[in-house]
Amino acid sequence: MKKDYLLTPGPTPVPPEALLSMAMPIIHHRTPEFMEIFKEVSEGLKYIFQTEADVLVFTSSGTGAMEAAVSNLLSPADKVITIEGGKFGERWTEICRAYKINAVPIEVKWGTAVDPKDIELKLKGDNEIQAVFTTLCETSTGVQTDIKAIADITKRYNAVLVVDAISGLGAVDIKADEWGVDCVVAGSQKGLMIPPGLAFVSLSKKAWEKVEKSKFPRYYFDFKATKKALEKTDTPFTPAISLVIALRTTLRMMRQEGLDVIFTRHKKLAGATRAAMKAMGLELFAPTAPSDCVTAVKVPSSLDGEKLVKLMRDKYGVAIAGGQAEMKGKIFRIAHMGFIKETDILTAINILGMALNEMGYSCETALGVKASIEELSKK
Amino acid sequence: MKKDYLLTPGPTPVPPEALLSMAMPIIHHRTPEFMEIFKEVSEGLKYIFQTEADVLVFTSSGTGAMEAAVSNLLSPADKVITIEGGKFGERWTEICRAYKINAVPIEVKWGTAVDPKDIELKLKGDNEIQAVFTTLCETSTGVQTDIKAIADITKRYNAVLVVDAISGLGAVDIKADEWGVDCVVAGSQKGLMIPPGLAFVSLSKKAWEKVEKSKFPRYYFDFKATKKALEKTDTPFTPAISLVIALRTTLRMMRQEGLDVIFTRHKKLAGATRAAMKAMGLELFAPTAPSDCVTAVKVPSSLDGEKLVKLMRDKYGVAIAGGQAEMKGKIFRIAHMGFIKETDILTAINILGMALNEMGYSCETALGVKASIEELSKK
Repeated sequence: MKKDYLLTPGPTPVPPEALLSMAMPIIHHRTPEFMEIFKEVSEGLKYIFQTEADVLVFTSSGTGAMEAAVSNLLSPADKVITIEGGKFGERWTEICRAYKINAVPIEVKWGTAVDPKDIELKLKGDNEIQAVFTTLCETSTGVQTDIKAIADITKRYNAVLVVDAISGLGAVDIKADEWGVDCVVAGSQKGLMIPPGLAFVSLSKKAWEKVEKSKFPRYYFDFKATKKALEKTDTPFTPAISLVIALRTTLRMMRQEGLDVIFTRHKKLAGATRAAMKAMGLELFAPTAPSDCVTAVKVPSSLDGEKLVKLMRDKYGVAIAGGQAEMKGKIFRIAHMGFIKETDILTAINILGMALNEMGYSCETALGVKASIEELSKK
Repeated sequence: MKKDYLLTPGPTPVPPEALLSMAMPIIHHRTPEFMEIFKEVSEGLKYIFQTEADVLVFTSSGTGAMEAAVSNLLSPADKVITIEGGKFGERWTEICRAYKINAVPIEVKWGTAVDPKDIELKLKGDNEIQAVFTTLCETSTGVQTDIKAIADITKRYNAVLVVDAISGLGAVDIKADEWGVDCVVAGSQKGLMIPPGLAFVSLSKKAWEKVEKSKFPRYYFDFKATKKALEKTDTPFTPAISLVIALRTTLRMMRQEGLDVIFTRHKKLAGATRAAMKAMGLELFAPTAPSDCVTAVKVPSSLDGEKLVKLMRDKYGVAIAGGQAEMKGKIFRIAHMGFIKETDILTAINILGMALNEMGYSCETALGVKASIEELSKK
């Protein structure tokens, strides 16, 4: 019997209403029927991004939109700051270097968040810095970055703040306009609850000024062409029609639940997960700045983390994530992002406890359940 | 009552089995379950591309993969030939110029195909030409290009042959290896019968040698990184999982039907459509080199082509395409590509006749039906 649970940090589970909307006969994208859908999606995205600005839609993975931010905002040999401290922070550096941009990384210990003061120190000393690239929720370490504090700094400098919010948007708070985040990049398969294949970018006025000056070659990911098409409720190229239709469904659900309620739900689920881990004698990997999207936990030193993830998936149908890159085998990650509720978290805790015991690590699953229920029951 | 028929040249109708496969719960892409699917899809793509080489898979529209061909095969200021003669041929020129490549277009009259001799003339005179960019089926004009004849020429020169087969692959014959087509670019929403959102690229040895020398910045669409991941049955970035799963379904259908049978079916449907148009007193837009994917027809001068398309769509639920760019309002296009059979073509002919008569253009629908049935009944 196949009955699976997905608690990975992307893709995240897709609500059945959205899955079924993709099973309807495909429609053409240059029709009044699709334009109405695309208009509703565009409005919904503004609500989620908390911006009055247009949110550009691309058919690609989130990484495509990250590259687009680099190729549309900058020019060759520009100087920028990248905040590392995880696989996705490092990706900013990699993309910038592929473009021969002078990327100066701030190296942050994996499992901790950047100190915004370190960013200010760099900006103060060098007015040539064009951009600061960071990550809302660093999926590889379970760390959440204080974007508001960083935006408070960048808005006083020439540099634009570019945030990879692929993990996080629609799950934890990020106020593009109010905080002054110049460029927010997002993907479809996380907080937005649809399958991967769409990516999104919002831009502030300050960011659009950089776009005007940018000198990299580009075509498919061109921000100006995309904005021009969007003004006619269109896309420059054939969009991933089914995914846009699915997104209408989940955006409706999100507007109905309301952003504040969504954020509170994620906080609660994250708190319950963390409490359970501690109660079961496990150690959090990012205790000082834990993300409300995904909880990273150290694998007990006697165990193989990859085996644990496989056991949970293959025997019990509960998919959590292992560690990536240098953390492979050393941490596991339980995502509580998107279409996730109490029952999912409790399932993950129960199966984790069972699997740990089976692997010879002694822990009290019931203590984990008790601690998480206490958190979940708080007002 | 909503009961629609899609006869547009992309998106094309998606078989219900493929639609339903996208309605299954989403799975994670880094699992044995997905790897098995991706492996089968990769093998199926080789069959469709008629190549032994790896077929790279990107999450994007077809245009993304067109740009990828430019940014991975060339370097700044390279000289290339682009074959124009329609909106998509012109797109090659546009992309090349966005990259500051010295693109020398061969301008072909819309509605006619390029004469391969014109390409040879240019190549003979200039060994610096690095690539020839052309289009298998020029969707905007309904013209089919003689790719084999062009490949016979390019293989004797330094230039690689790059073919936009977005419209055409899996519907009309293109033999990547046997003919020596160095780079075939395709999309998911045409002959491959799934929704838009995936794009594909095959590369010959000669093309890979150009990739080694290419000097453009790129990250998301990097051919080498994509090939490296593919060797581990993986993608560098999260793929459009649902679309890959849908593609497994349609590729299985295509292997079962067999490429030759598929090509014959398209030829027959195209022939039936053309015969019907002529029998109804309408004039083909591309009589000398008509595509077997889409038939372009001149709108009778007394009528507004845009109104005709709208009438068929809004009153009868039969979606055909109007003209694009300079042909707007002047032609209409009936696609017979992908998940299309006799009944669909006959539906289109019947409704077209009814709509034309309603708009005051006198034609005998029955003559169109008769002519098409004659074609369809041929052995």
